Amino acid sequence: MTFRVRFAETDQMGVAHHAAYVVWLEAARVEWMRERGLSYRDLEDDGISMAVSPLRVGYRRAVRFDDLVTVRCRLVEVRSRYGRYAYRLLGEDGAHVADATTEHVATDRSGRAVRLPAPWLEALRAEVQPDEHA
Amino acid sequence: MTFRVRFAETDQMGVAHHAAYVVWLEAARVEWMRERGLSYRDLEDDGISMAVSPLRVGYRRAVRFDDLVTVRCRLVEVRSRYGRYAYRLLGEDGAHVADATTEHVATDRSGRAVRLPAPWLEALRAEVQPDEHA
Amino acid sequence: MTFRVRFAETDQMGVAHHAAYVVWLEAARVEWMRERGLSYRDLEDDGISMAVSPLRVGYRRAVRFDDLVTVRCRLVEVRSRYGRYAYRLLGEDGAHVADATTEHVATDRSGRAVRLPAPWLEALRAEVQPDEHA
Amino acid sequence: MTFRVRFAETDQMGVAHHAAYVVWLEAARVEWMRERGLSYRDLEDDGISMAVSPLRVGYRRAVRFDDLVTVRCRLVEVRSRYGRYAYRLLGEDGAHVADATTEHVATDRSGRAVRLPAPWLEALRAEVQPDEHA
Repeated sequence: MTFRVRFAETDQMGVAHHAAYVVWLEAARVEWMRERGLSYRDLEDDGISMAVSPLRVGYRRAVRFDDLVTVRCRLVEVRSRYGRYAYRLLGEDGAHVADATTEHVATDRSGRAVRLPAPWLEALRAEVQPDEHA
Repeated sequence: MTFRVRFAETDQMGVAHHAAYVVWLEAARVEWMRERGLSYRDLEDDGISMAVSPLRVGYRRAVRFDDLVTVRCRLVEVRSRYGRYAYRLLGEDGAHVADATTEHVATDRSGRAVRLPAPWLEALRAEVQPDEHA
Repeated sequence: MTFRVRFAETDQMGVAHHAAYVVWLEAARVEWMRERGLSYRDLEDDGISMAVSPLRVGYRRAVRFDDLVTVRCRLVEVRSRYGRYAYRLLGEDGAHVADATTEHVATDRSGRAVRLPAPWLEALRAEVQPDEHA
Repeated sequence: MTFRVRFAETDQMGVAHHAAYVVWLEAARVEWMRERGLSYRDLEDDGISMAVSPLRVGYRRAVRFDDLVTVRCRLVEVRSRYGRYAYRLLGEDGAHVADATTEHVATDRSGRAVRLPAPWLEALRAEVQPDEHA
């Protein structure tokens, strides 16, 4: 997923605020699912969320307003109630601007851990790329 | 309501981003209700929202990171399904930094206009301060 | 400009929060400029901002997570230190979801009103579409 | 630091969005400094920022709109160009809702690592509480 840094995402240091990256990771994850025929919106509409915990972001280089940023997203591990993603953020020039990891538990509306629906689990399992270097 | 401008609310101009004010108005409205014994959270839990439209903000002076900002909130008009608030934002030195108006329609979860619950309507009516100068 | 509503932009009413629209308007404005060969980033780098005031948004219909939203942006008026834009937001099905107006003053870093650079002013003047129905 | 969850910080799961916590950590850090006579605003005005990397947040329990959340902040380590904070977030009932760690590098406006000013370094060193359990 590639997008431009919004003006509202900058802070007075003149760069994208570090909290904005967390929103970008989520948007990239949703696009990653869509490209695989999985609608996170439908999952949510069925009452299942992929709650995040923990989240880890390593910032290597600042990005600025209007920069094109690319988020590469990879599913590293999946289990019936759990998923783990790894991300690499690249700047316009291909520079490596950040890395991140998010872990997720599938939960119902009351926050209880639940199994992912079988079609999701199957589709996700086919996409796992374990991270040998993690 | 008085609060400090968060670093994340600044932009690269070095001042609070204009979208942050919209969030502050909402927070001030919720506090205004609380001070009058009205819990917006309870209203929401009962399935009723005060959807905003339209919103108007006039920005007079920038505020910066860590500034104390005070929002004065006033209910200008209320009807069974409708409310209108006016706001004045003041800076640390009492300077007049912005004005705003929000209008609201009470809606249920499906977005349909509904009557405010009787206790809300009664409490709100007692608070109306019509704006003779508007 | 067309984009998808981000999950982080929703609120507990299950729709995009009304402050998110303000960020979208800004992003649409920046794209509108880019399509006309004007880089808002360069203008900012030259120390000139287009400070917003006032802002007005009329919300007609909620949009939801993952919806495609299109923002149509039009420059209605321009003067040497001033510009006014009108916006229409459309949902996936072409439904009219919101209207907005923003007025802008060109300011330097100290917040003082300044003239837009001549090339900007010329380019903007060529794009004005006065709103006969406003 | 104790504050209320803003409506705009919720998402359609009905809880505070996970990116909001990152903003809260920053606000808590700024307050922690202020309580020790350190103005992060002044540091910024002197051209020095405490850039974040990495950031780690572990979410244990959701918080909802209007909840009072308390952030306990602790400086775990400090060096001339570096600081590390640990956080615990508590809900209204004292429940443990999240933990976090942020590491920081002091940078100048060009993003280069710089030494913290001597008074800052001295004040921060006096506040270090190493984390034996980390």
